Amino acid sequence: MLYGHGANILESAHHIDAEAGHFFQRIRFDLRELHTDRVGLEAGVREVAERFAMRWQLRLASEPKRVAIFVSKFDHCLWDLLLRHRAGEMPCEMALVVSNHPDLEPVARQFGVPYHVFPITAETKRAQEAGELALLAEQRIDLVVMARYMQVLSNEFVGRMPGRIINIHHSFLPAFMGGKPYHQAHARGVKLIGATAHYATTDLDEGPIIEQDVMRVFHRDSVDDLVRKGRDVEKTVLARAVRWHLEDRILVYGNRTVVFE
Amino acid sequence: MLYGHGANILESAHHIDAEAGHFFQRIRFDLRELHTDRVGLEAGVREVAERFAMRWQLRLASEPKRVAIFVSKFDHCLWDLLLRHRAGEMPCEMALVVSNHPDLEPVARQFGVPYHVFPITAETKRAQEAGELALLAEQRIDLVVMARYMQVLSNEFVGRMPGRIINIHHSFLPAFMGGKPYHQAHARGVKLIGATAHYATTDLDEGPIIEQDVMRVFHRDSVDDLVRKGRDVEKTVLARAVRWHLEDRILVYGNRTVVFE
Amino acid sequence: MLYGHGANILESAHHIDAEAGHFFQRIRFDLRELHTDRVGLEAGVREVAERFAMRWQLRLASEPKRVAIFVSKFDHCLWDLLLRHRAGEMPCEMALVVSNHPDLEPVARQFGVPYHVFPITAETKRAQEAGELALLAEQRIDLVVMARYMQVLSNEFVGRMPGRIINIHHSFLPAFMGGKPYHQAHARGVKLIGATAHYATTDLDEGPIIEQDVMRVFHRDSVDDLVRKGRDVEKTVLARAVRWHLEDRILVYGNRTVVFE
Amino acid sequence: MLYGHGANILESAHHIDAEAGHFFQRIRFDLRELHTDRVGLEAGVREVAERFAMRWQLRLASEPKRVAIFVSKFDHCLWDLLLRHRAGEMPCEMALVVSNHPDLEPVARQFGVPYHVFPITAETKRAQEAGELALLAEQRIDLVVMARYMQVLSNEFVGRMPGRIINIHHSFLPAFMGGKPYHQAHARGVKLIGATAHYATTDLDEGPIIEQDVMRVFHRDSVDDLVRKGRDVEKTVLARAVRWHLEDRILVYGNRTVVFE
Repeated sequence: MLYGHGANILESAHHIDAEAGHFFQRIRFDLRELHTDRVGLEAGVREVAERFAMRWQLRLASEPKRVAIFVSKFDHCLWDLLLRHRAGEMPCEMALVVSNHPDLEPVARQFGVPYHVFPITAETKRAQEAGELALLAEQRIDLVVMARYMQVLSNEFVGRMPGRIINIHHSFLPAFMGGKPYHQAHARGVKLIGATAHYATTDLDEGPIIEQDVMRVFHRDSVDDLVRKGRDVEKTVLARAVRWHLEDRILVYGNRTVVFE
Repeated sequence: MLYGHGANILESAHHIDAEAGHFFQRIRFDLRELHTDRVGLEAGVREVAERFAMRWQLRLASEPKRVAIFVSKFDHCLWDLLLRHRAGEMPCEMALVVSNHPDLEPVARQFGVPYHVFPITAETKRAQEAGELALLAEQRIDLVVMARYMQVLSNEFVGRMPGRIINIHHSFLPAFMGGKPYHQAHARGVKLIGATAHYATTDLDEGPIIEQDVMRVFHRDSVDDLVRKGRDVEKTVLARAVRWHLEDRILVYGNRTVVFE
Repeated sequence: MLYGHGANILESAHHIDAEAGHFFQRIRFDLRELHTDRVGLEAGVREVAERFAMRWQLRLASEPKRVAIFVSKFDHCLWDLLLRHRAGEMPCEMALVVSNHPDLEPVARQFGVPYHVFPITAETKRAQEAGELALLAEQRIDLVVMARYMQVLSNEFVGRMPGRIINIHHSFLPAFMGGKPYHQAHARGVKLIGATAHYATTDLDEGPIIEQDVMRVFHRDSVDDLVRKGRDVEKTVLARAVRWHLEDRILVYGNRTVVFE
Repeated sequence: MLYGHGANILESAHHIDAEAGHFFQRIRFDLRELHTDRVGLEAGVREVAERFAMRWQLRLASEPKRVAIFVSKFDHCLWDLLLRHRAGEMPCEMALVVSNHPDLEPVARQFGVPYHVFPITAETKRAQEAGELALLAEQRIDLVVMARYMQVLSNEFVGRMPGRIINIHHSFLPAFMGGKPYHQAHARGVKLIGATAHYATTDLDEGPIIEQDVMRVFHRDSVDDLVRKGRDVEKTVLARAVRWHLEDRILVYGNRTVVFE
């Protein structure tokens, strides 16, 4: 079908989960010699998809996703994402940064990214989240990246952006869920620390895992050493996950991800 | 003190846990030019240790530890340990293999290691463990290695050999404690699987961790693939832990280990 | 075409090297509901392949490759391959072991694999290789695995089995080509050692690389430590390469490999 | 001796290279309860060192090293070092940045670090290096970090700062010495790329290696992908090497390093 429309396939990846009875496919193709328009192409894809009862999406690289980064006070993931974007590693528009603190505004500003502060207390949380959601809608945000954002999003918030919020948790999930995972890891005496990028769901730290990695630690490493070493893992794991999402390399089913890296 | 007795220091490693208020040291030295006997040397070490209220052990490489490997039906860790021993990687005497099944007797036999079967049911467990402990005592066993032994040792058994039983758990602890960790890992959709070697304590899978490692898995990996890939991690993690124990490189305090690798 | 014959596709992987102008594809499918015979299927594949000027191969899992392992005196890769085969990890027939020394005959024997000794000196090399080639032909060997075989195969030998000889070199190629790579690595003071599995070509250590891996070493590691640590990397790298070859996951073009792992 | 002066030992590490006949030791201690002054302490250390014919250095954490970063146009290592410094990971004074291009001045400026441009051509090289050396002397620079600086330093320059220039080479040395290592790696079809931090010597890419690491690449990775992936390895390897140097954890002898990490 694609061949018939003049599309030149650049990448193609399949996965078959025989047990679950699912077939997954990602095709990246070049439009330059297409001899139909987008409407015709979509109609062709839809026709094939419907024949095999498949869900499908067609995305244009010329319409990059719009990203909002959520941060609190830790800045390493924010710097990392903005620098990678500037280096051309992140095919997206960095539309805005949202924070519950004003501290990191100078970082966003020097990359020319608008910074919005929504201070949050137990009393204001509901109203502030409503404000955030309004901003995301107004700015047509496609993806929220929680780059060490220290607030738990409400179920309402998460439910509004299913499969479109990526969080970095600073442990090798499902080990050390919840708060202070480096303290937990140090107390348990593990020999590796890790980080996990996952889609946010209403079950905290239980969403579909996108990427994980680890780093070796030693008996001589204090909690502070774990925090320092962990920053490097957090940054790279989050960046890989975001990049794959931006390139539409991730398919989610149930609590699992297919990653066509 | 060592210098005064003519000992030639080959290796020396320290660790200070300021928070816990502990000082750890391991010294390996050459005895060949010692101009006192072992009794004199021990007296010297004891005198220094008592002055600083330290616990100490003096071990001779000429008196290697005697090891008992416990197995059930999985053979990969057993083969690995016996082949490493033959290759000179394991400074110990492989004294005997204990199993609750007769299946792996041919493996032990070809390395000339006696194989003892103690079939275990809920009813016979207490009596069989008593038999095992008698055998271990009679054979002057210094270390029990649970090389994918599928029985849970009773608290009485573990209490009889504190710090002298090493277990391999086929997950990255504390993730996926308990049974069928590869099934758990597959269901959770993790991107890395791991293995953990630890000292057995009365709290199952909660003992001091000696070593851990991980291996990357993908969405296309089935549970069987995880089991296959995991065998390689289990083998190498267990072998490193056992080797370090045999060379007296591990010091345990609380639920933590210092590993002077 | 496959769908038309009733084949059920289980795995499919593509790669496009736009620069070299090549398209690569591997499809694994289930034959059970095929409603043509093998001849018809091959005719179908050939017709499609010729239309697009593609080279192709059709292989049946029911006809596993026949493997000859070449060894000298180091036994770790031999044990590893034979144990993995017994564990069901290696879809092949372990047809025979060839060596220039009699030492490892007991290893082969206990797995029921015939062991052939071809002692080699400068004078006898040509004749002995002829004998080996005759044996390989007689035994219909599909793949030669050089499992730390310490003889350099002649160009004639290599030329007779293009793309069907896998060698393990105990360094991270192209670093430390040639002899005694662990000594070279120690002298250079590297912080990682490696191993490389590659197809043998007439340029020694220059063939297409299939797989590589590394392990961390420290200033305190002697050459003997490097040799010991390296054994683990050699084994796993060679096993992965052989397994991928047996499952027809490797496509070679020029000096490069596509590995559909 | 240290104990006698009231020093409280915090860390102590030894290494014995029996073959080379060298003993290495690094001791970190707390001065707060010292009951002699620095002169007295140095005299004590000197007396012990001379008795055993040892070379020694005594450094105060209160007198951090002064660092000059040399860059050209690639900015990832520069950003990484400056951000780590700001995060408190780098115990030094970031004294200045030197470049043969004006491009990265805005990066240095926003961290408040002076930026000096020395444009270099074949004709001006000698004079410009003399200018750089004068600047380094005037600014009492202890360490030069070549953070992807694309000029080859002359032997005269290197000879003036022995063991005080750290370079990052974007390959796993000794593989792919010289220019365009990612192109070389891609052409050779390796399965891992690496980076190497080493002290600069008059033999380019031949100096003592401090740290190395690797990252997996696949047949589908282009040279551009290698460049992108490589940046992450370069940054982390260089940062570890610089940090260890700043904490005086590296001892060099011959072409080897002891790293008391």
